[in-house]
Amino acid sequence: MDIKAGISKAGIKPSGDYDILVMSFPSSVYSVFLTQNSLSAAPVQYDRMVREIQDEISAIVVNSGNANAATGEEGLRNAERMAEIVADLLDIDKEEVLVFSTGVIGVQLPMDKVEKGIKEAVKNLERWDLERSARAIMTTDSFPKFYQTSGMIDGKTFHIKGIAKGAGMIHPNMATMLAYIFTDVKIDKSLLEKASKLVVERTFNSIDVDGCESTNDSFLVVATGESDLEINDKNKIEFAKKLYEVALQLAKMIVKDGEGATKLIQINVHNAESKEEAKEVGQAIARSNLFKTAMFGNDPNWGRILSAVGQLHRDIDFSNVKLYIGDYLIYSGEPVDYDREGAVRYLKENSEITIDLYLERGESEWTYYTCDLTYRYVEINAEYTT
Amino acid sequence: MDIKAGISKAGIKPSGDYDILVMSFPSSVYSVFLTQNSLSAAPVQYDRMVREIQDEISAIVVNSGNANAATGEEGLRNAERMAEIVADLLDIDKEEVLVFSTGVIGVQLPMDKVEKGIKEAVKNLERWDLERSARAIMTTDSFPKFYQTSGMIDGKTFHIKGIAKGAGMIHPNMATMLAYIFTDVKIDKSLLEKASKLVVERTFNSIDVDGCESTNDSFLVVATGESDLEINDKNKIEFAKKLYEVALQLAKMIVKDGEGATKLIQINVHNAESKEEAKEVGQAIARSNLFKTAMFGNDPNWGRILSAVGQLHRDIDFSNVKLYIGDYLIYSGEPVDYDREGAVRYLKENSEITIDLYLERGESEWTYYTCDLTYRYVEINAEYTT
Repeated sequence: MDIKAGISKAGIKPSGDYDILVMSFPSSVYSVFLTQNSLSAAPVQYDRMVREIQDEISAIVVNSGNANAATGEEGLRNAERMAEIVADLLDIDKEEVLVFSTGVIGVQLPMDKVEKGIKEAVKNLERWDLERSARAIMTTDSFPKFYQTSGMIDGKTFHIKGIAKGAGMIHPNMATMLAYIFTDVKIDKSLLEKASKLVVERTFNSIDVDGCESTNDSFLVVATGESDLEINDKNKIEFAKKLYEVALQLAKMIVKDGEGATKLIQINVHNAESKEEAKEVGQAIARSNLFKTAMFGNDPNWGRILSAVGQLHRDIDFSNVKLYIGDYLIYSGEPVDYDREGAVRYLKENSEITIDLYLERGESEWTYYTCDLTYRYVEINAEYTT
Repeated sequence: MDIKAGISKAGIKPSGDYDILVMSFPSSVYSVFLTQNSLSAAPVQYDRMVREIQDEISAIVVNSGNANAATGEEGLRNAERMAEIVADLLDIDKEEVLVFSTGVIGVQLPMDKVEKGIKEAVKNLERWDLERSARAIMTTDSFPKFYQTSGMIDGKTFHIKGIAKGAGMIHPNMATMLAYIFTDVKIDKSLLEKASKLVVERTFNSIDVDGCESTNDSFLVVATGESDLEINDKNKIEFAKKLYEVALQLAKMIVKDGEGATKLIQINVHNAESKEEAKEVGQAIARSNLFKTAMFGNDPNWGRILSAVGQLHRDIDFSNVKLYIGDYLIYSGEPVDYDREGAVRYLKENSEITIDLYLERGESEWTYYTCDLTYRYVEINAEYTT
């Protein structure tokens, strides 16, 4: 893929690390999902306008260290200014640039530094190195998040590559979570949007770290069309599967890197009445502080799992419900005599845990991903700005 | 008030502490609110049936140490059996007895011990001592919760007294709030229910410790009618105010005793479009782990407060919003240059914190109570395992 990326140290991050990323690519169709938090950041508001009027883009600019959120009119002007600077340097239309920010809320961007940083990043544009780009957008992340795959459909090869960031303030409808996925297939904008929506619902919108949705969440899929492969109604499922693979891997990395997390927990809800119900049930468990602390304590505490489900006030008949932690059946319509020591050992010895809940009400299923709630989470968040 | 209470040590609590409370009183109108968690405990299911058919009650029985929840048909029979034993001993109808339990989920009640314990508690019936009764229903509470007041309306004296429990879930699966309030006024059942509903919404339904609703939550108001004071449409507000005072004091004690809490936080939402909106906004802040950890860290992190509100996806215009922490105005349509050191000191030096949020959208207000999220919360809920 003819994608270039340049990074620079603008001095927005107090640490002095890389904090600007510019990416440049052929004019491409795209699909972008932006946070629904009504305290949305200036770049999110700006990108919403672009999304309305612009079918193709050819660059993005991201700064880390400052969210440009709750910054009023000045913030909005600064977001637009970032697009302008990039457009001038790359000699493209301003509307072909999307802008993203992540970091502290409520502080104006130091625009002189930002401008210098963007200039340097553009000067540094080179063949896209996923790891370097992923590093430049990190805030509290402990590792850079990137993933790539390729596939063959109708005898034609295609590629999908993505980077992401996020660790805290993670909850569906996205969160301080940024993700950029590029593919080289030829695809209609409407088909790309359909496939992306399907994928985002089952990946970035089905993860939780702390139930807190952010002001800046953004997820972008770009299709450059450089491959010979054209996606149509016949092969769209195969393409969506690959897109799902990349998005899921990135989403899981975010949960794994959840602030203070020691465990990635996969909650599979089966036999629900509807997809909405299955997702709600998974989310209710994923968000329960009592469940999350029990997981940290290696405690197969089924009461906390079922009670979290009961809190939805749905007419679920718990005398039909089955619950597994790993391979251990621990509730089956009533408390079950199970190998408690084995289940505790399973929780202790694995950093990836699976919960399976069978509701026996229908045919729908959903998988939700969360992490445990630990001392370190409290430490990180009680001592972040002071 | 002619209210008698008897307590006993039935041996349901492993600690050997008091775990049975029986209260006996003149046949009285009542209003009872029961958890809506669909994994509701057997006594909750039993009391729901009683509520349907019975206008007056004259006794309650409470056991602590075992929630009788997720216990199926046998659990339901045991709840009914508790009512029967009390009714036989007091020579009243079984339907005049409400039953409550709190403690471990998923374990059948040791009915031989329960029966012996109830017999002894009935033998011990004596003039109601609030503190002793409050102690008998404690599970992980660190202090007994009780409050009383009296008032005068139309030249006639009346009394309101209450006990409550709730705070901790140190023992896995223990999670419950119970509250019993008695008054001697004469009042219609329908008027009592109206007043109680009003009060419960602004008190026990506006508190949060960890976002987890229990299987056993119950709130009972009993009016014995022994006073000469008759509550009617003219004086109902004055009565409701006193009832609110008692319920609020008890509710605040529960938050104050929240697991690991170091701070009681009062969130006042002003000028909302509707009461529902005001309550939702208060609750969203109260439940935010990021806000709760910031409070623990004495961090006046207004971004986390506004972002929690934004997560409701309401069309709130944040350029009109004002936010105070204590007396410090820290956001007023945009970030404000405020005395940060002073605000940090305010958070550090006070165990009762006030947040005031002005939405400038209407006339409605609501107050929500919560506590901070601390290392100790994680310790309590993770480390007490196996």
